[in-house]
Amino acid sequence: MSNQRIQQFISWMKAKNISAGFITSKANIFYLTKFYTDPHERLVSLLVFQDEAPILVAPNMEREQILACGWDNEIIGYSDTDNPWEFIKKAVEKRGISVQTLAIEKEHMIYQRAEKINEIFTHPTFISAEEKLHELRMIKESEEISILREAAKLADYGVEVGVNSIKEGKTELEVLATIEFELKKKGIREMSFSTMVLTGEKTAAPHGKPGLETIKNGDFVLFDLGVVLEGYCSDITRTVALGNVNDKQREIYETVLKAELDALNICKPGLEIGTIDKTARSIITNKGYGDYFTHRIGHGLGIDVHEFPSMTSTNTNTLKAGMTFTIEPGIYVPKVGGVRIEDDVLITENGFEALTKYPKELQIL
Amino acid sequence: MSNQRIQQFISWMKAKNISAGFITSKANIFYLTKFYTDPHERLVSLLVFQDEAPILVAPNMEREQILACGWDNEIIGYSDTDNPWEFIKKAVEKRGISVQTLAIEKEHMIYQRAEKINEIFTHPTFISAEEKLHELRMIKESEEISILREAAKLADYGVEVGVNSIKEGKTELEVLATIEFELKKKGIREMSFSTMVLTGEKTAAPHGKPGLETIKNGDFVLFDLGVVLEGYCSDITRTVALGNVNDKQREIYETVLKAELDALNICKPGLEIGTIDKTARSIITNKGYGDYFTHRIGHGLGIDVHEFPSMTSTNTNTLKAGMTFTIEPGIYVPKVGGVRIEDDVLITENGFEALTKYPKELQIL
Repeated sequence: MSNQRIQQFISWMKAKNISAGFITSKANIFYLTKFYTDPHERLVSLLVFQDEAPILVAPNMEREQILACGWDNEIIGYSDTDNPWEFIKKAVEKRGISVQTLAIEKEHMIYQRAEKINEIFTHPTFISAEEKLHELRMIKESEEISILREAAKLADYGVEVGVNSIKEGKTELEVLATIEFELKKKGIREMSFSTMVLTGEKTAAPHGKPGLETIKNGDFVLFDLGVVLEGYCSDITRTVALGNVNDKQREIYETVLKAELDALNICKPGLEIGTIDKTARSIITNKGYGDYFTHRIGHGLGIDVHEFPSMTSTNTNTLKAGMTFTIEPGIYVPKVGGVRIEDDVLITENGFEALTKYPKELQIL
Repeated sequence: MSNQRIQQFISWMKAKNISAGFITSKANIFYLTKFYTDPHERLVSLLVFQDEAPILVAPNMEREQILACGWDNEIIGYSDTDNPWEFIKKAVEKRGISVQTLAIEKEHMIYQRAEKINEIFTHPTFISAEEKLHELRMIKESEEISILREAAKLADYGVEVGVNSIKEGKTELEVLATIEFELKKKGIREMSFSTMVLTGEKTAAPHGKPGLETIKNGDFVLFDLGVVLEGYCSDITRTVALGNVNDKQREIYETVLKAELDALNICKPGLEIGTIDKTARSIITNKGYGDYFTHRIGHGLGIDVHEFPSMTSTNTNTLKAGMTFTIEPGIYVPKVGGVRIEDDVLITENGFEALTKYPKELQIL
């Protein structure tokens, strides 16, 4: 009784002559089963076989929620004092399956679990399950796109709330709290990463942490935030200014904006992915800020807030309809400040759709 | 120029004849360097050697923040298009170190990175670095205890805000939003896990997800929340009732409360850890609810919200002064509801201190 996604994965396993799949990441378990859980250090695992029905292994206390997701195959439950590895070994033996090769998530599987697998299945050859799962997840289905579009709208709304709440003397965390409060009222229970509201010199840290610093006249205020909606992430960045900006700030802003727009406007199926980063980077470099654009142009977006494709200058793959990713150039000048502008982008049959739509022209409040 | 924690780790390496350490988890990097970062899929790694100064490997864009943490040893920075593994290989070769055995975090290291390490260091023998790091982190220093105490106070405050905001017809997420809003105003930028506010039948799911369900008269409302303060976590659960409770609800509540108090009151240095779970479980089982207490009594608490010691019935280690952990029995009856009561506990020289202090007697609002 496998669903279509599991069937696609099994077809790949058969083509590669892989005995079984052992999937443990929250994202891929959700993608393949609709069961969304954060088991912390406890094992949750989807076992997939060529010809036998799949099995979901999870703590006993998750059983009700697994059933609520519509899972109608076997569940192996275990308590905190059970050894789930023994249960797995027995279940596989019962089915008469000899695990010679095993598809695991090499980018997620922790070493200790690989050791356990080596014990119970006597050192199978590990194949990267992500090879197929990244490929499947990279092209979004229409249902996924609808959710991502709604998630992006909520990110737009988050920025709108944030911008409207800016006032001289307010702290970064006060503005942040207002954003998340309003999003929760709309039913959002989880942000896709720690919301960022940075002001003044702190905007120069691409991964800076919001605190009790207050917004001052002449400051940039940078928002980077996203929501998790029905298991899918959004991710937007906007930078606005309070009171006034000096010429340097304006130059930085306009350079980032031009880089973002030019990178966005070339997006369509068939484009080599690396071109997007190169396009933005050359604009920034030509203005003399190349050393201050310290990260790739963006990242794939979906169930994970960072997924494939990786939007680096060296990615030679091409864009395909159904891909979703971010475009987010930035310039960060230490002791001065930074600007980043980020949109979520969907590749359509003929071009692109920017899923995030909050205005990008420099706003001086 | 290593700090004392790194020195303790190196002493262990020397005693075990381990050539080098390769640490990549957010928690252990913070513990050993004070640098607190969430690099997502990017590599951040602390390299430790027996006789050479340590090295921190991180994305270029983290450099400013690493320096701000007081790190005065080498930093190897890399961009999104660099291959940090080559940089690491060269740096180790330059020091003339032959990596025969390598301490890695087997519970954290992902398989793909272990493969990279096998390439650059030619298949070293892996030793579990956690063996030592868990031991070091399990006993908190006085500075850490002070922070944990403050973090617990803020968790108390979160429950207080939540209880005060309960009103018939309010949604779980509205109450949750109010809690986090007030905590952010106090400077908290991150919760230690997704805050839980559950009501009615949903309280029967130990890992249930808050939503737009409204609080009704006669409902239990369960709060499970904690803050991250200066890198350390708190974690509290309280369950209160709105309007009135029936006899069954009261029996469940009183059973959980007795289990929690009895388990708490036996805590002191020298007690076998498993006794704590057994004490609580026998009270719950004697009342006929054994099958509805589906998880261990608690977990260690510190930089990670779940760390060591693991508070299972089968843990034969003994309590030591400086350990911090949770005690959190619960009873979850499907279709009826659930109660959990959780405190953060510090083992002192002569007994224990409950770090969380919000009242536990049944509150009917």
